[in-house]
Amino acid sequence: MVCNCKVINFSKMGSDMGFLVPVEAEKDIPFKIKRIYYISDVPNDVTRGFHSHRYLEQVLICVSGSVKILVNTPFEEEVVELNQSDKGLYIGHMVWREMFEFSEDAVLLVLASEYYSEDDYIRDYNDYKNEAVKYFER
Amino acid sequence: MVCNCKVINFSKMGSDMGFLVPVEAEKDIPFKIKRIYYISDVPNDVTRGFHSHRYLEQVLICVSGSVKILVNTPFEEEVVELNQSDKGLYIGHMVWREMFEFSEDAVLLVLASEYYSEDDYIRDYNDYKNEAVKYFER
Repeated sequence: MVCNCKVINFSKMGSDMGFLVPVEAEKDIPFKIKRIYYISDVPNDVTRGFHSHRYLEQVLICVSGSVKILVNTPFEEEVVELNQSDKGLYIGHMVWREMFEFSEDAVLLVLASEYYSEDDYIRDYNDYKNEAVKYFER
Repeated sequence: MVCNCKVINFSKMGSDMGFLVPVEAEKDIPFKIKRIYYISDVPNDVTRGFHSHRYLEQVLICVSGSVKILVNTPFEEEVVELNQSDKGLYIGHMVWREMFEFSEDAVLLVLASEYYSEDDYIRDYNDYKNEAVKYFER
């Protein structure tokens, strides 16, 4: 797996009454949850993301449908398909991400370690590459 | 609205690239998020819930599909339909809740103020009623 990323498998409790997946902050995931957001109604041919964060950590969970996540650094890259509601993708510092091939029913839930801060985004890939090369070569 | 409950309308940012709804802890909702869970694949004829919490606060959001939530105390009751991803139902202390008529595609996301604690549940309605009468008559 790409550096600063990992797949987290959550427990899924269920029966013929439905399924429930719990996620506890600082237990099932390695940070406090200061913010969540969810993305839906993304056309299949649209790719979102195209940024990295310096300090923000996130866990992405596809709670309905499926989506593919490209995570990369200047040194490695991987595509992770999220298609089960008990599977999360942790993305830590300085990882570039793109989300694509959202299924029609996809809802992507994101748990985030910090409040929204535009200063923490790196949105230009060349800027990202320069900063990330230094970061990962520490 | 039933005492200790309120509807919260979140901002929804969107375009033809899809929609995004952000929820920040202690800003858009009145507590820290220690735990989240999501419920899916509930048959339409199943009702879930049937409990109250003494201290836990929650916000329920239907991020896909629709579901109805009955909230009641010994003194009042109301049914709230959650059918938009930018609408949340805050449920505070000592409110009995039942969730029913889940649509086939329903995913109910719950944001909770505390870690799971079985001690905080009241699952017997008579026990609830006795305790809640005292609580609400304070």
